[in-house]
Amino acid sequence: MNTSRPNKTPEDWWTTAIIDMKPGMIRLRGYAIEDLIGKVGFVEMVYLMTRGELPHPDAAKLLEAALVAAVDHGPQAPSIAAARMAVTCGVGINNAMASAINMLGDVHGGAGEQCVQLFIAIAERLGSAVAADSQRMAEAVTLEINALAQQGVSHVPGYGHRFHPVDPRAPRLLELVDDAAKAGVVSGRYAAIGRAIEAQLAKRARRIVPMNIDGATGVIFAELGFAPPLCRGLFVLSRSVGALAHAFEEMQSGERNKGPIPRHLTWSYTGPPARKVPGNTA
Amino acid sequence: MNTSRPNKTPEDWWTTAIIDMKPGMIRLRGYAIEDLIGKVGFVEMVYLMTRGELPHPDAAKLLEAALVAAVDHGPQAPSIAAARMAVTCGVGINNAMASAINMLGDVHGGAGEQCVQLFIAIAERLGSAVAADSQRMAEAVTLEINALAQQGVSHVPGYGHRFHPVDPRAPRLLELVDDAAKAGVVSGRYAAIGRAIEAQLAKRARRIVPMNIDGATGVIFAELGFAPPLCRGLFVLSRSVGALAHAFEEMQSGERNKGPIPRHLTWSYTGPPARKVPGNTA
Amino acid sequence: MNTSRPNKTPEDWWTTAIIDMKPGMIRLRGYAIEDLIGKVGFVEMVYLMTRGELPHPDAAKLLEAALVAAVDHGPQAPSIAAARMAVTCGVGINNAMASAINMLGDVHGGAGEQCVQLFIAIAERLGSAVAADSQRMAEAVTLEINALAQQGVSHVPGYGHRFHPVDPRAPRLLELVDDAAKAGVVSGRYAAIGRAIEAQLAKRARRIVPMNIDGATGVIFAELGFAPPLCRGLFVLSRSVGALAHAFEEMQSGERNKGPIPRHLTWSYTGPPARKVPGNTA
Amino acid sequence: MNTSRPNKTPEDWWTTAIIDMKPGMIRLRGYAIEDLIGKVGFVEMVYLMTRGELPHPDAAKLLEAALVAAVDHGPQAPSIAAARMAVTCGVGINNAMASAINMLGDVHGGAGEQCVQLFIAIAERLGSAVAADSQRMAEAVTLEINALAQQGVSHVPGYGHRFHPVDPRAPRLLELVDDAAKAGVVSGRYAAIGRAIEAQLAKRARRIVPMNIDGATGVIFAELGFAPPLCRGLFVLSRSVGALAHAFEEMQSGERNKGPIPRHLTWSYTGPPARKVPGNTA
Repeated sequence: MNTSRPNKTPEDWWTTAIIDMKPGMIRLRGYAIEDLIGKVGFVEMVYLMTRGELPHPDAAKLLEAALVAAVDHGPQAPSIAAARMAVTCGVGINNAMASAINMLGDVHGGAGEQCVQLFIAIAERLGSAVAADSQRMAEAVTLEINALAQQGVSHVPGYGHRFHPVDPRAPRLLELVDDAAKAGVVSGRYAAIGRAIEAQLAKRARRIVPMNIDGATGVIFAELGFAPPLCRGLFVLSRSVGALAHAFEEMQSGERNKGPIPRHLTWSYTGPPARKVPGNTA
Repeated sequence: MNTSRPNKTPEDWWTTAIIDMKPGMIRLRGYAIEDLIGKVGFVEMVYLMTRGELPHPDAAKLLEAALVAAVDHGPQAPSIAAARMAVTCGVGINNAMASAINMLGDVHGGAGEQCVQLFIAIAERLGSAVAADSQRMAEAVTLEINALAQQGVSHVPGYGHRFHPVDPRAPRLLELVDDAAKAGVVSGRYAAIGRAIEAQLAKRARRIVPMNIDGATGVIFAELGFAPPLCRGLFVLSRSVGALAHAFEEMQSGERNKGPIPRHLTWSYTGPPARKVPGNTA
Repeated sequence: MNTSRPNKTPEDWWTTAIIDMKPGMIRLRGYAIEDLIGKVGFVEMVYLMTRGELPHPDAAKLLEAALVAAVDHGPQAPSIAAARMAVTCGVGINNAMASAINMLGDVHGGAGEQCVQLFIAIAERLGSAVAADSQRMAEAVTLEINALAQQGVSHVPGYGHRFHPVDPRAPRLLELVDDAAKAGVVSGRYAAIGRAIEAQLAKRARRIVPMNIDGATGVIFAELGFAPPLCRGLFVLSRSVGALAHAFEEMQSGERNKGPIPRHLTWSYTGPPARKVPGNTA
Repeated sequence: MNTSRPNKTPEDWWTTAIIDMKPGMIRLRGYAIEDLIGKVGFVEMVYLMTRGELPHPDAAKLLEAALVAAVDHGPQAPSIAAARMAVTCGVGINNAMASAINMLGDVHGGAGEQCVQLFIAIAERLGSAVAADSQRMAEAVTLEINALAQQGVSHVPGYGHRFHPVDPRAPRLLELVDDAAKAGVVSGRYAAIGRAIEAQLAKRARRIVPMNIDGATGVIFAELGFAPPLCRGLFVLSRSVGALAHAFEEMQSGERNKGPIPRHLTWSYTGPPARKVPGNTA
């Protein structure tokens, strides 16, 4: 997998298909920047930069819905709390945004990526026969959920929510996917897979375990063909908007060194009682 | 400026006008998220989240142009290089994007913010009389450029470019501002100020010092009323797209621990020659 | 101040006096690494790497005391809270430590650096006449405190503390500086300056405003000749120890996506009431 | 593994055994900070903060050697390059250090942690019979190396080096471990395991694959009983020293926006040729 040839020149060391530049010229994926500005929207740019081609307008609208849906989940999210605390510490707003997205790891931002991996695995089991056969679908779903369990993953990513009995973002996003599938813009295979997982989780748990924001955006990203790591990055772009808004709002508070809880409160100390340093330790 | 009342409760410690949430409900600036999804675009969300209100569609298009224009400037930008190196070090794509935007400091990302501060300062000197009087404009520009020089700022932010004799992004952006001003969407006062600075710099330098991406996006941000720190954040949102695209591309290379220059090259060592550690130092 | 010659080669682009390396050889500031290991301590290495020479053993002990003193101030510090939240989000411990130190900006970690700048400014006014003349000392202190006030800095960095009436770390550190001055290891000029500031602040405020950790470590750094930006870095090295300890401890909790306050609490929402998205916005 | 009780108070939400604090009092692991300052060294503090107890002086010296050994590997390391570039972008030195350590992921800083996991796995197979039976040792080593291979790990962490035929840091560190084992400070079991792996890799590869810095520091960390995630953190503390030194040195260069290669060079563009944006995309 190591593709580095020996003794590359510096110009070969840094190589990209994304941008070409000469004095006075900038081309992104072949398009002159001044041709893109005013003609192509920001979400189309996200698609173009990451995928290499401009998207169909209806595909862009689906991506846009996913990006809109995930922008914020409140100052109790560690990422947003980090952004708000950072601006009170005398760092720039870019550093505050960086602190926020640095927190979007496998647990706080990775579920969308993990969903897409799950959907893709189920789709690979089904091959082309996804629409018709609900028994084959149920079997493929069962096998992959069991595979997750064997890897120690007890909660299937994309379903259920700590706070919301029903995540208000998911049904609306699925509605848009259904519209796009009817219009032939996407296949609808991943929406079907996503719903089949939801049905099976309900059977197993004997209560609804509804699709959440990660599952719903995961359906969209998979329908649009985004590789899993890109899905994490798309969630990051979305959540960066919330990070910026919260950081700027906290800048107006005048707080300094704002910590997680009010200053007159203190933490629980569970360590050893007071003791003296022995005579000679260093 | 310290507005913290003594003995806040935790719920008062974290307070925001951006998002309201209850189980099953998410409202952003008062709008239900499921009402926004599919109706409001991503750039409108950026405006809504940071400013509190939905933008006029033509204002959104101007903001969109600014966000599109700044997405990338190649792997020689420290921010982009950092994103590309990071993914070869075994960190997540969110960490790579964070490393990139953490670099967008006063020198690598701050010029747009500094431009807006300059434009605002000139506008404040002019009061309402910006359109008519070119002599007053020239005086106000002179005073503020001199003020910058006294603070030790020799290069006026937003003009000239290390690489591009003429930045290909600026004329197109100004064209869109002019169209918006003609349509009455924006006032055009900051475009006028931006051009007046460009004219004066040319006089002083006796060669053109054309407006660059920071000046042009600064004109847009100022026309739309964004406070300077938000301008830095908007540039960060834009550049995050390039960071994501480059990070994902580098993930395909198979490189491990990719440094800035090819491995068979080495750096110049300018330190002391070989010497021995004295007998007893610790 | 720009010293880059045109058309540098990549080997001239990266140049350092810190480390020389060939296959099988690593020399730091001229000393072979295998000669340093086991002979030179970690604090001596901090001095050697940043200053270029090995320190006198007693100077190393003073630096060591400063590094020991600042390692932690509890999970209510934004830096420590960030480290603890980060490890519950599925990022690596290095990312958690990075999130912590990214918060150590001008307000949360910069006071030591600002103290040293203040001490140096006062010392420059005094020239060589620091020990004898308390009136000249008082005048120099007054002038510099007033200069700070004119820059909008109302709280003199290094004195007073939000939480501690007397910071328990400062007297002990000053004691060690006094011992080192008596032994001729340092001059004691900055300890004298630090105390003179403390005395004058007490007069102005009519209550004690005792030196805190930043003032005391600032005295040590100034006595040892560290430039102000390095002082921020030394504080970062120290606080990294607390960040690591707290991050590792939180890893044992089993928490996922740990935010700043318990989940059953919520934040105060101060934004607009529920409203509907108008018909056509995008 | 989720140990959070419902409805914790904020003081129970943040709980630690590391630090106890009241106005005027700071105790770390039970020891008053003013008792530690001047009595306990910085490396002892690292041990105390992470492990909860003060170390035996000879154990501290071993840990110190490991921390000294890993402080730097030159500006071609992505972490060091990131620190140097960051300071030219107008961010604080703490942000530059954060950018550096954010890069120390599984590939650029994780080998020490992975070594310790490997050593521990082998030790668990051997139970108590480590010293005597070289055949059982060889079998345990074989089984664990094969287990790594089955997980897709082809290069055993801790052995061989891209740049150094023999890593100059490893023999010296192993020498110190041997001395400590002779003195009864550590058991020597992990040194034996580390050497057994080295011997077997040489057999398999039919050339020496000598232990490198990660293997040697891994031996020390394992001998001292540090859990694997802490080992990554200890490497981060060490490398932070190099990051600080290099960042400060680059601050003196006067460079602005320093990228990875000299500006007159450019990257290789491998993307599509110039093309025009189609009529209606947004």
